[in-house]
Amino acid sequence: MHPPELVSNLRNFLPSESVLYETEDLKPYECDGLSAYRQTPMIVVMPETEEEIIKILRVCNDSKTPVVARGAGTGLSGGALPHAKGILLSLAKLKKILEVDPITQTARVQPGVRNLAISESAMAYGLYYAPDPSSQVACSIGGNIAENSGGVHCLKYGLTVHNILKLRVITIEGECLEIGGACFDTPGYDLLALMTGSEGMLGIVTEITVRLLPKPEEAQVVMAAFDDIQMAGNAVANVIGAGIIPAGMEMMDKLTTHAVEEFVHAGYNLDAEAILLCESDGTEEEVADEIKRINEIMKKSGAVDIKTSHNETERLTFWAGRKAAFPAAGRISPDYYCMDGTIPRRNLARVLAGIEKLSIKYGLRCMNVFHAGDGNLHPLILYDANLPGELKRTEEFGAEILEMCIEVGGTITGEHGVGIEKINQMCSQFNTKELEIFHAVKSAFDPDRLLNPGKAVPSLRRCAEHGAMHVHKNQEKFPDLPRF
Amino acid sequence: MHPPELVSNLRNFLPSESVLYETEDLKPYECDGLSAYRQTPMIVVMPETEEEIIKILRVCNDSKTPVVARGAGTGLSGGALPHAKGILLSLAKLKKILEVDPITQTARVQPGVRNLAISESAMAYGLYYAPDPSSQVACSIGGNIAENSGGVHCLKYGLTVHNILKLRVITIEGECLEIGGACFDTPGYDLLALMTGSEGMLGIVTEITVRLLPKPEEAQVVMAAFDDIQMAGNAVANVIGAGIIPAGMEMMDKLTTHAVEEFVHAGYNLDAEAILLCESDGTEEEVADEIKRINEIMKKSGAVDIKTSHNETERLTFWAGRKAAFPAAGRISPDYYCMDGTIPRRNLARVLAGIEKLSIKYGLRCMNVFHAGDGNLHPLILYDANLPGELKRTEEFGAEILEMCIEVGGTITGEHGVGIEKINQMCSQFNTKELEIFHAVKSAFDPDRLLNPGKAVPSLRRCAEHGAMHVHKNQEKFPDLPRF
Repeated sequence: MHPPELVSNLRNFLPSESVLYETEDLKPYECDGLSAYRQTPMIVVMPETEEEIIKILRVCNDSKTPVVARGAGTGLSGGALPHAKGILLSLAKLKKILEVDPITQTARVQPGVRNLAISESAMAYGLYYAPDPSSQVACSIGGNIAENSGGVHCLKYGLTVHNILKLRVITIEGECLEIGGACFDTPGYDLLALMTGSEGMLGIVTEITVRLLPKPEEAQVVMAAFDDIQMAGNAVANVIGAGIIPAGMEMMDKLTTHAVEEFVHAGYNLDAEAILLCESDGTEEEVADEIKRINEIMKKSGAVDIKTSHNETERLTFWAGRKAAFPAAGRISPDYYCMDGTIPRRNLARVLAGIEKLSIKYGLRCMNVFHAGDGNLHPLILYDANLPGELKRTEEFGAEILEMCIEVGGTITGEHGVGIEKINQMCSQFNTKELEIFHAVKSAFDPDRLLNPGKAVPSLRRCAEHGAMHVHKNQEKFPDLPRF
Repeated sequence: MHPPELVSNLRNFLPSESVLYETEDLKPYECDGLSAYRQTPMIVVMPETEEEIIKILRVCNDSKTPVVARGAGTGLSGGALPHAKGILLSLAKLKKILEVDPITQTARVQPGVRNLAISESAMAYGLYYAPDPSSQVACSIGGNIAENSGGVHCLKYGLTVHNILKLRVITIEGECLEIGGACFDTPGYDLLALMTGSEGMLGIVTEITVRLLPKPEEAQVVMAAFDDIQMAGNAVANVIGAGIIPAGMEMMDKLTTHAVEEFVHAGYNLDAEAILLCESDGTEEEVADEIKRINEIMKKSGAVDIKTSHNETERLTFWAGRKAAFPAAGRISPDYYCMDGTIPRRNLARVLAGIEKLSIKYGLRCMNVFHAGDGNLHPLILYDANLPGELKRTEEFGAEILEMCIEVGGTITGEHGVGIEKINQMCSQFNTKELEIFHAVKSAFDPDRLLNPGKAVPSLRRCAEHGAMHVHKNQEKFPDLPRF
């Protein structure tokens, strides 16, 4: 169907301001948080109701037009990058909080609701929504589901998938699925988990029931400095080995602390090779007990400097540096590229040493700041897009980091999704049969492959061209990596 | 393919004692824990290695022979009921614990390993495997994955799906999938969750990496007696509303406490309408603090009698009655039928009153003992199979309980799976499109529908015949249920 015809079909049931097709109107939608990739969509639609979404999807299905869903556009892997011949389905206008139920400790919300707005509306009942991606002021719960977002607190409270109970989903044919339920387990295949993290490729979520948690009475954070990154890695293992699940467990390397200290003045030890932030939350007694134990473990693990926050201001100051890591990268470098890989915790020091070698090889600095507790790395590669070849070198550097994550038994994403950014690395992560199963699962929902085509799961042809079909496991690509 | 030909094909690579086909050898496999349904399989195979499993599946795929996998045969919904023209694939011989890693706190095991054996082998490191179905002495981890098993502790520690990290799965075509990983999140669709609870219908699991947890230092249990079941239900909500997630939160009604007290002498208050058991575990300080708070909440919630265990012997005595509920049912009735439904906690009293009405309607007693914290009911319907019509009445009673669970927003299973037992209720739980998606997902893995055919997901034809296509929601079937 030609664009004018599509536009007129869509205008049959959508007000004209909800169907955008002029170049200047489409411009704001050409990329998400991964701005290195840009594409203007054919049409942008902004429905306000589920009924409108059903009709839009039917139009797309009948005309075989690709559909890319978009939440707040904060995604970092290009999952909401538009399709040149497709419709961009913005869910920004579906932003109603339909119900907050303090008895069942749940909230029922529309997909365009901001992550933080859920906690704000639950605050009156002493409840909150646990997953807290650093974009939580802006990102939408629908986008969180598409990417299975995490955050600083996911070590203790889980990812998005662990904090949602029920979804209403519209299929590409415009039919409604209700998946999950108020209870812990549901019969049939686990479509709730399947949908979460599926990057808009299986259906459009129109309503979400999230689990709320009682706000912890108390929170304190321990800041420990180490002379050696290996020792900091061991301290992480020792805390968790002692049966403590911290509310947050973050690590920053020296380059990072130097970059942030300058403007947040968090009091970080600037001689330290690594700073660990380890938070405890719960009742006053629980926190007091846990903080005491964390202090002992940090000392035994060789920390040269340990501080504990004694009030909320101090706690927020300790965290300020961690939260400012990304802007700090922007201060010391014209551009930076945020990677997202996950590794088994035991390989932390090995991979950090590998990143250092790659940093020398590519001649690019890399700040390391990450969710140490769950092994989720966020290397920030510093570069200058105006210098010819630097972006390309940065991407190669990033790709090598991801391959290294796979090699040590990790994965190419922790919480940002695959999108378009990491689609080639999927060829290394999975074998042919695994990729075939992914495609078959996709076909179960969307046989004509109209939902977010070209994202997240590479075609077998693409993998063959990429030349990296499943080369991991037992095939060392980095034989020179130091071993621990 | 005719049985003799199949047998000879299988004997090409399996020792003769691993291929059973004589009637007397097949007898022990004719049912699982749901013994009301029986079916002799054509052939039973008992492989010892993954390689043998691959070859068996290839033979089945080539000859289009149905395959039903079986763990320890303790399942309660008939998931391992054999197929008359199929192969029963026993995984009992794959019982190696391949690795226990105290650093990553994981164990890598084969599917035939008993649930409790994992904790036993991890004990030396102070670790254990959390999900604890009451059959944990006997049931296998492979079966736990097939059913997504829970247990008393799942409220705090999650179901099987929350405690496994990685699976090796063989497809019906004999190809190997590695799904999940050492890390929290993995790219691609969440096949790990999809496989968990899929009742042997998507693939055969040959290796499992489970998450181990540090054994809590201390555990104490509060036993609270209530004059009124509604008040006990509110006490559950009050504990959870206070931000406490108990390690276990179980309720028993009067019929149950009377049945068990007689032979376990747990000291239950026999005048009480309901007994709550609420366990706290953690460090000594945490438990002391939590137990104090639980006591206060029970008192405020109207408990007439509260006792706290002060040592391990007392704790186990308090639990003895709960654990003996099933044998106790066997003592006061020739037969009993254990149901498994889940409801939102707020509807507890409403559903219990409904069960009481049904009990009068069908003239059958029903003991109520359940995981109150997560709303997972286990009504035990007492009957006598030797009295004509009692089994049929029992099944109808059970089916009405499940329909009631659906009506209040719950589900037809909490942790026992659908199997053959609850397949008709799936027609009420899901709409046509949802069932179609289930079938399409199945086809993604097993296009010829050879794996455990006829289980868990009903055909649309079956639902049409059952006449119960999705009649729930807004259509009250039990308008006379008391409201609270």
